[in-house]
Amino acid sequence: MRQPTRAGVRDAAAKVAAILPPSPIYVHDVGGVAVTFKAECLQPMGAFKLRGAWHRLTAIDPDVRDKGVVAFSSGNHAQGIAWAAKRLGMPAVIVMPADAPRSKREGTLALGAEIVTYDRDSESREKIAAHLAHARGAILVPSFDDPWVIEGQGSAAIEAMTQMVEAGLPDPSHLVVPCGGGGLAAGMTLGLPDAAITVVEPEGWDDMCRSLEAGWIEPVGDNPPPTACDALQTKRVSERTFEVLARRDAKGVAVSEAEVRAAQRWAATKLRLVVEPGGAVALAALLARKVAPQPGMLVVLSGGNVDVDAYSAALAGDR
Amino acid sequence: MRQPTRAGVRDAAAKVAAILPPSPIYVHDVGGVAVTFKAECLQPMGAFKLRGAWHRLTAIDPDVRDKGVVAFSSGNHAQGIAWAAKRLGMPAVIVMPADAPRSKREGTLALGAEIVTYDRDSESREKIAAHLAHARGAILVPSFDDPWVIEGQGSAAIEAMTQMVEAGLPDPSHLVVPCGGGGLAAGMTLGLPDAAITVVEPEGWDDMCRSLEAGWIEPVGDNPPPTACDALQTKRVSERTFEVLARRDAKGVAVSEAEVRAAQRWAATKLRLVVEPGGAVALAALLARKVAPQPGMLVVLSGGNVDVDAYSAALAGDR
Repeated sequence: MRQPTRAGVRDAAAKVAAILPPSPIYVHDVGGVAVTFKAECLQPMGAFKLRGAWHRLTAIDPDVRDKGVVAFSSGNHAQGIAWAAKRLGMPAVIVMPADAPRSKREGTLALGAEIVTYDRDSESREKIAAHLAHARGAILVPSFDDPWVIEGQGSAAIEAMTQMVEAGLPDPSHLVVPCGGGGLAAGMTLGLPDAAITVVEPEGWDDMCRSLEAGWIEPVGDNPPPTACDALQTKRVSERTFEVLARRDAKGVAVSEAEVRAAQRWAATKLRLVVEPGGAVALAALLARKVAPQPGMLVVLSGGNVDVDAYSAALAGDR
Repeated sequence: MRQPTRAGVRDAAAKVAAILPPSPIYVHDVGGVAVTFKAECLQPMGAFKLRGAWHRLTAIDPDVRDKGVVAFSSGNHAQGIAWAAKRLGMPAVIVMPADAPRSKREGTLALGAEIVTYDRDSESREKIAAHLAHARGAILVPSFDDPWVIEGQGSAAIEAMTQMVEAGLPDPSHLVVPCGGGGLAAGMTLGLPDAAITVVEPEGWDDMCRSLEAGWIEPVGDNPPPTACDALQTKRVSERTFEVLARRDAKGVAVSEAEVRAAQRWAATKLRLVVEPGGAVALAALLARKVAPQPGMLVVLSGGNVDVDAYSAALAGDR
């Protein structure tokens, strides 16, 4: 099993820097400490996912690129793959549940991908995607359990470190990062070999937190609570992502839905950024002081793709 | 009367570039045309106003800087002046109505300025500010009727043009820009000598539109309608700003409150940016096709300081 490496993260960072300007960083006072925020929500398709997609797709032999790429996702991974495939002139097929939100279907279609739908209750997206990939000779790209994808997401860390140094800020010494399957968290951990790591998940979906405490992979329990963090609803992390985080003694914390909404309000009024629920969990942990602000802290705002009605309600609520 | 010049705008752009990274530009498809958006809402204090403030305050003789600066404003100009003064180590006094929104008071205080309040019904902010400036030997900085302020705001045009060229986009050939007193519009017009200009105002507050049509300055009428665009509630433009725009045959259009809200929703979902009502009027004119999208079009999103309740309601409404 190929493992993601720091060298691979650095390679991914160079590849991403060749096609995209760095996503901005913002420094803001939190409890008397200057904290750095990395605005991955401002990427062209609204999330960090194009990093891993670009690193993976550019690693495909040019001779077989015309066979295309297949992914299953109803969200940001789909749009990241579609974005990278379009840029490389590759066909992309996204396997998506028939009841996926229209905004996400439209975002994926607008990037030129083909969508194949399945019935969430009776069909397996993994099987459909594997079948499609086999039939077409296309490459299947997982959303996090893939060394290139992990390395690609990690490019955000190299980029942020460079920006912090250029801005005269301290080197990033503590990373606080949203965690679904752990691709972004593991990749950025590889990119920052000297930083302490905290991964953040929604309450009830904090399987990486519990896995890191236990020392082995624990899946999400049966009947997890509803969460607005659609981007973080991963039922089981992978050995690849878990191993990277466990080896670095990463800690995990869980945040409530109300804490996530408070973070979305803070981002809107203090940074003027639209951050989706799953993209706001690391900020939520900081604002709720589940992580203490400290110099050199780097907090990732990982995505900004919102349903406008739900977003409006999140900004209005809880007061 | 000193007039703002293109040379002054270029000088301002160099001064601003020395202390601030460029605000990002975003290219998005509107009606099949790639339109460029300049995100001034992502400036450190949330609006373009720090440009004019910086150009003006750095033009003050260092020997008298310790006397400080005075401005009257309840909004973005106050925060722009406070931001620039703090950076220069100058005292700043802001004259603000006693009933100004708490978020704006707090934003100004957080930047280290002193606030002097007045009663909106019985006192004149102009007189209070002039008296304070005289008593302290401080410099009074108007929000738009000032050659340095106009030139400073215009630095956004030089910056955007550079960014567009670097991104391989066409030179900006048509500027669409929000207009209150006209400082930003006039400054950017000076910065783009070959571009067509459209200024945008809220309906009922479209005095620059009417002035440009009439050929002389027309003030806002009695009892103008309520508008969410607090940043654009200027009752009379100045000769300095009007002359620049009239000489270039600028056109004006007015947008409705519903069109402004639609623009705020579009910016949140397509660009993941929080844009305040007054900052969204140029985008509103484009989306309502009151201005036809065309290649080389540059649309300014001029500010992002929102009251979160009003913003949430704007995102929710009208459907």
